[in-house]
Amino acid sequence: MTDFLQRFESHLRAALGDPRHAEREPAVLLEASNHLATAGSAKRMRPLLVNHFGAAVDLHPLYRLCIATAAELIHTASLLHDDVIDEGTERRGRPTANARWNNSVAVLSGDLVLCIALEQLYELPRTVTTTAIELVAEMTRSAMLEVQARRARRWDLDDWHAIARGKTGALLAWCGRAPALAKNESDLARSFADCGHHLGLAFQITDDLIDVMSTDTGKNRFADLRQANPSFLIAAARQRDDQLCRDIDAWWDGDGEADELHRLARAVASSEAPRVAVNAVDDHLAAALDALGEFANHPNGRQIVGWVEQLRSIAHGALTSALPKRSHA
Amino acid sequence: MTDFLQRFESHLRAALGDPRHAEREPAVLLEASNHLATAGSAKRMRPLLVNHFGAAVDLHPLYRLCIATAAELIHTASLLHDDVIDEGTERRGRPTANARWNNSVAVLSGDLVLCIALEQLYELPRTVTTTAIELVAEMTRSAMLEVQARRARRWDLDDWHAIARGKTGALLAWCGRAPALAKNESDLARSFADCGHHLGLAFQITDDLIDVMSTDTGKNRFADLRQANPSFLIAAARQRDDQLCRDIDAWWDGDGEADELHRLARAVASSEAPRVAVNAVDDHLAAALDALGEFANHPNGRQIVGWVEQLRSIAHGALTSALPKRSHA
Repeated sequence: MTDFLQRFESHLRAALGDPRHAEREPAVLLEASNHLATAGSAKRMRPLLVNHFGAAVDLHPLYRLCIATAAELIHTASLLHDDVIDEGTERRGRPTANARWNNSVAVLSGDLVLCIALEQLYELPRTVTTTAIELVAEMTRSAMLEVQARRARRWDLDDWHAIARGKTGALLAWCGRAPALAKNESDLARSFADCGHHLGLAFQITDDLIDVMSTDTGKNRFADLRQANPSFLIAAARQRDDQLCRDIDAWWDGDGEADELHRLARAVASSEAPRVAVNAVDDHLAAALDALGEFANHPNGRQIVGWVEQLRSIAHGALTSALPKRSHA
Repeated sequence: MTDFLQRFESHLRAALGDPRHAEREPAVLLEASNHLATAGSAKRMRPLLVNHFGAAVDLHPLYRLCIATAAELIHTASLLHDDVIDEGTERRGRPTANARWNNSVAVLSGDLVLCIALEQLYELPRTVTTTAIELVAEMTRSAMLEVQARRARRWDLDDWHAIARGKTGALLAWCGRAPALAKNESDLARSFADCGHHLGLAFQITDDLIDVMSTDTGKNRFADLRQANPSFLIAAARQRDDQLCRDIDAWWDGDGEADELHRLARAVASSEAPRVAVNAVDDHLAAALDALGEFANHPNGRQIVGWVEQLRSIAHGALTSALPKRSHA
């Protein structure tokens, strides 16, 4: 674990508070907040991104920790509410807050975690707070769009974009914007936000690609196809192949057989869609690097370049890996 | 309707946005937000209080509208989430958002409404925003305490205080604090917050009193006793009469008969508790007037004095009204 991540983990725990020493809180809200926010499997992509961009503008390390904690907790708050909405039962290898406790605890701990996130920003210029509030509004709108798309079982690439922009792009954009705003660097704030936005979309498309193309045969395989989750890959396949689109519609509308799901996944995987998706990842990564500009040569900028290369390699790897095999489950 | 309330209603609608012209929003979030926030039966106690305190410090009318809208929307957001938590089906004579739509819409419209509330405060000094965030955290904590108390079916006057402070007192306190902070009047902010806090507790005790003492025989009669809702009156009765306390516990623990509920309500009503409650209302109202100070002579201050007198008269009226009659429903 990097030095930054060690400091981040203890800053995060201090911000959330220790349920064993809860004086003002109902302890269960702190337990639920810690349960999700400090799960060992959290990747801390957002805090790391804040640290890299913060280093680029020479932001004081304490303020980087504050923004990183706010970013991670805004993400945590959205997950707590998402799990109520989706009736999710597992997250980061643990039962969700709604499953482990109940909806009351999940809704209220999400509300409290959002307040704690915003409290982290009190010492920073006001625009850091106002952009955070607008970010939460944007994430909320796109969460609703996603629920609607999934329920309607009809969405296209435009819908996907509207959802992915708010769901993944907006928070990663803020991870670039906020550290620059904290130093009143408004031009850099735009560039870094742009970089974060494109990184976010590249991440999301890669996630969507892996859902169908992975050779992993776990129980969550083909979750996007199974649950009609908006997916770049599936939207691209549907747009390009009318027959496949009708077959997927029929499967979503009926009570699909597992065999048919696997056939549809193979059809998506062997269509032009994966190549389209990888091209889109490449485009977003190129745009992210472009927005990074000279900062690509800064030591922390090189870390972001490293992410770009890693992500490109995962996306291209998914393309050339074996087509999905029939599950024996 | 007063001139202020007319301007408030149109400011509120503009802040929420018109679902028919939704460009960025999923329309359903705006529909759900408007559905609750603009229900005709809303009393607008919080906006009125903001206007009175704002006039006292000669705050620009536009800023009064902004703080009033923020206060009403913070209240609305908490109700949207409370109704998910309580699985409520009716509010202000309309189906709740979770009943009319579903939990997703209710949770997300609550999140969005909170963002819109905070956006109202951008032009005002920063402390108005930071105190609003702390207010939401406090309301969230006390909502959790209330859920736990209701589930455990055990609470005393201390629990009641902790819950009522955050549930009712904190927002009414902010309605006094925020207009004064907007003019950087920090001493007045403390006094007005104090006044709002005591008014809030007096309102809550009167509400609790009416639940048992009202001669109204509607279906929500004795809701606090029936649902084990934390109530000042019931807590005071339980504290003073061990046998009554055991009888109430037994009713809460078993599947109570309606007859027994009416007997318990009559026992609470004829105990010392109503007198204790009315004394507490008197004390809080005296403290509210004390905090109001010289401002009691200001034209808007006289409006608040009018509320104090009205509330005192309702509380004393409940005490002298007929004991609750057996319902014929």
